[in-house]
Amino acid sequence: MTTVGILGGGQLARMLALSGAPLGLRFLVMDTVADACAGQFAPMIVGDWRDERALSEFASKIDVATFDFENVPAESAQWLAERVPVFPSPRALAMAQDRLAEKTLFRELGIPVPPFSAIDSREGLDAALDAIGTPCILKTRRLGYDGKGQFRLKTRSDADAAWDALGGQAQTVGLILEGFVAFEKEVSVVAVRGRDGEFRAWPLTQNWHVDGVLSASLAPAPVSAELEASAVAHARALADALDYVGVFALELFCDNGVLLANELAPRVHNSGHWTIEGSETSQFQNHLRAVLGLPLGATRMVGEACMLNWIGTMPDASAVLAEPGGHWHDYGKEARTGRKVGHATLRADTEAELAQTLARVGKSLDRMAQVQPVIDALKR
Amino acid sequence: MTTVGILGGGQLARMLALSGAPLGLRFLVMDTVADACAGQFAPMIVGDWRDERALSEFASKIDVATFDFENVPAESAQWLAERVPVFPSPRALAMAQDRLAEKTLFRELGIPVPPFSAIDSREGLDAALDAIGTPCILKTRRLGYDGKGQFRLKTRSDADAAWDALGGQAQTVGLILEGFVAFEKEVSVVAVRGRDGEFRAWPLTQNWHVDGVLSASLAPAPVSAELEASAVAHARALADALDYVGVFALELFCDNGVLLANELAPRVHNSGHWTIEGSETSQFQNHLRAVLGLPLGATRMVGEACMLNWIGTMPDASAVLAEPGGHWHDYGKEARTGRKVGHATLRADTEAELAQTLARVGKSLDRMAQVQPVIDALKR
Ligand SMILES: Nc1ncnc2c1ncn2[C@@H]1O[C@H](COP(=O)(O)OP(=O)(O)OP(=O)(O)O)[C@@H](O)[C@H]1O
Ligand SMILES: Nc1ncnc2c1ncn2[C@@H]1O[C@H](COP(=O)(O)OP(=O)(O)OP(=O)(O)O)[C@@H](O)[C@H]1O
Ligand SMILES: [Mg+2]
Ligand SMILES: [Mg+2]
Repeated sequence: MTTVGILGGGQLARMLALSGAPLGLRFLVMDTVADACAGQFAPMIVGDWRDERALSEFASKIDVATFDFENVPAESAQWLAERVPVFPSPRALAMAQDRLAEKTLFRELGIPVPPFSAIDSREGLDAALDAIGTPCILKTRRLGYDGKGQFRLKTRSDADAAWDALGGQAQTVGLILEGFVAFEKEVSVVAVRGRDGEFRAWPLTQNWHVDGVLSASLAPAPVSAELEASAVAHARALADALDYVGVFALELFCDNGVLLANELAPRVHNSGHWTIEGSETSQFQNHLRAVLGLPLGATRMVGEACMLNWIGTMPDASAVLAEPGGHWHDYGKEARTGRKVGHATLRADTEAELAQTLARVGKSLDRMAQVQPVIDALKR
Repeated sequence: MTTVGILGGGQLARMLALSGAPLGLRFLVMDTVADACAGQFAPMIVGDWRDERALSEFASKIDVATFDFENVPAESAQWLAERVPVFPSPRALAMAQDRLAEKTLFRELGIPVPPFSAIDSREGLDAALDAIGTPCILKTRRLGYDGKGQFRLKTRSDADAAWDALGGQAQTVGLILEGFVAFEKEVSVVAVRGRDGEFRAWPLTQNWHVDGVLSASLAPAPVSAELEASAVAHARALADALDYVGVFALELFCDNGVLLANELAPRVHNSGHWTIEGSETSQFQNHLRAVLGLPLGATRMVGEACMLNWIGTMPDASAVLAEPGGHWHDYGKEARTGRKVGHATLRADTEAELAQTLARVGKSLDRMAQVQPVIDALKR
């Protein structure tokens, strides 16, 4: 009997546990709050990431550890890795936790990135603005998620406001200035790498964000085979360089047929949720297979799939459940503004059918704004 | 937040909980033993079916109840139904618990059955043998499962041995004598009926038993459209007659193109396990949707699917996990002779591919005897 420990008890941990149960696995989740939603289906230890007693108890009860939450302090991951196998490695995790380290690695590997510059003072910001120009985005180097810790500068005159908003974090989590990419699409490679280095990518996913938060994902992304191959090659180079084990997502901007890497998420990813129904093997099960050294599952698609994120509150389920390819995912969380509380995946045999399904669901739920960009992409 | 209570905590309850989690449901399982495998993923109450304190606690914590185990005493189901909604109804359950009542109902509904006769004494057995002839099977009316409580009579001279084996149960669970059907195939209709009477069947499944226990299932069953339509019509008539709510299986023998009903399983069924990966909506999720009055999901197939049961011990997982369409289901149980400990589902786009997959898996696991009949059926 193998017990997998998961650091973080959110929806990713919950879906990992649900998809790992058929492998005969047990799970133990650790989270800082007692009502973390994975705790509804797996035993849980509640404690701070730096609480050595909680971490000790966690370590003593598991055979291997992995992450639902990428911002576990690198030292805690390291402490744990000295006691049990941890995948992905603390080194890969640390790299992905820091936008500067990550973008520097991208560049080293020949993966194109938007212009960027580390910022540690108000003067540094000015100098970077000289080099990068506007529009651009000032971001925290660490601990950002769902678009948090970001300030967009349209013109140079926004510099003071940007520094007022984030300057205080320059010495704690660090800052980075990035050129703003007027992308025509955003895509992600969701991929898995095994302990033995075997690498498999799911079909490329196109993503739409609203206010910095993922709103919809479409797979396969309607892009050329060359573009997809190049995105996957970047993901593979990155995974190999980090000796990465498990599932990860590489987020990319696509601008005039050119790819620019945005960031690496060192875990199962929201843009891969469609794989539960839309692929032979879900990202969740393949992550566990990788972490445990089991053969990786096929990443081929089963039809066409669109994932719609539910933010804040769950809509009424009926419209989705009544669709022939409608699948519902309620994370069992309390409603809260801006919170990811669930998603739906719509699956269809053809693009035309998927577009029709989206139109019906969008209309029923009064969410045309959410589905319309996906319908447009399918019709193009 | 809705909590579904499940009477019985075996693999069916486990798979119900895993597939109901995405609906935002919570579960509470009741079982007579503390190590029931559903308890690994859902809270559990341990108690005897007639233990009113345990049942009370169970009833007080749930919104609706259903079954993993069909042999819960009818009075316990009834007691519960006076406190919370119970689906399927205690009446439907009671009917399916008694082979005599069940076969009588089949006959009333015009569903063909093998000849049968209730037996309550040694003389009764002789009289029934006169009427039915040999070969035939003496079965307990109640509490049989996986071929237990059955005695096969090849010739009349087996009557004493049959009575020695089962006669003692004539006054407790009752006995029934059935004509032996030299069937060419066994099939099952796995179907779901909603609270509003909506009815959906999955494609017909062909089943192979070894020593009275399910060994393999293939869907869609290679039968004519007429035969399938007739099987589904029988299932529908039965469900309507019982005002059945939830998933059930109707097991049928197919003999020279004629269908004879064997039994009704008033719950999700082993011959429907392939629906997890092989169908748009699994039997487990559709059972919960029916029980909760939610829209039923599509029962269409996604490819061709074969389920292989693992009895006694789990084989090595690698051969199945390495298959492009290989899906593993380890129930987290201890190995024990004759026990259903897990299954695998193999999915492929075509019959030919599925046959090849089965051949590879059968060879790797040294289980050609288990897969060969399925391969033969696919090649016919
Ligand atoms: N340099 C950029 N140019 C244009 N848009 C950007 C840029 N950086 C970020 N964005 C937009 O903001 C979104 C969120 O940014 P980013 O991925 O860096 O933040 P995050 O907090 O890690 O978000 P998440 O956790 O959702 O991935 C991006 O998906 C993109 O839509
Ligand atoms: N009358 C019959 N003629 C021929 N074979 C029979 C007959 N009754 C039962 N069998 C064989 O034995 C198997 C098990 O019988 P049955 O379904 O009645 O028992 P069970 O204990 O309810 O099994 P399960 O729980 O697996 O459905 C059948 O699937 C069939 O292969
Ligand atoms: Mg991002
Ligand atoms: Mg049977």
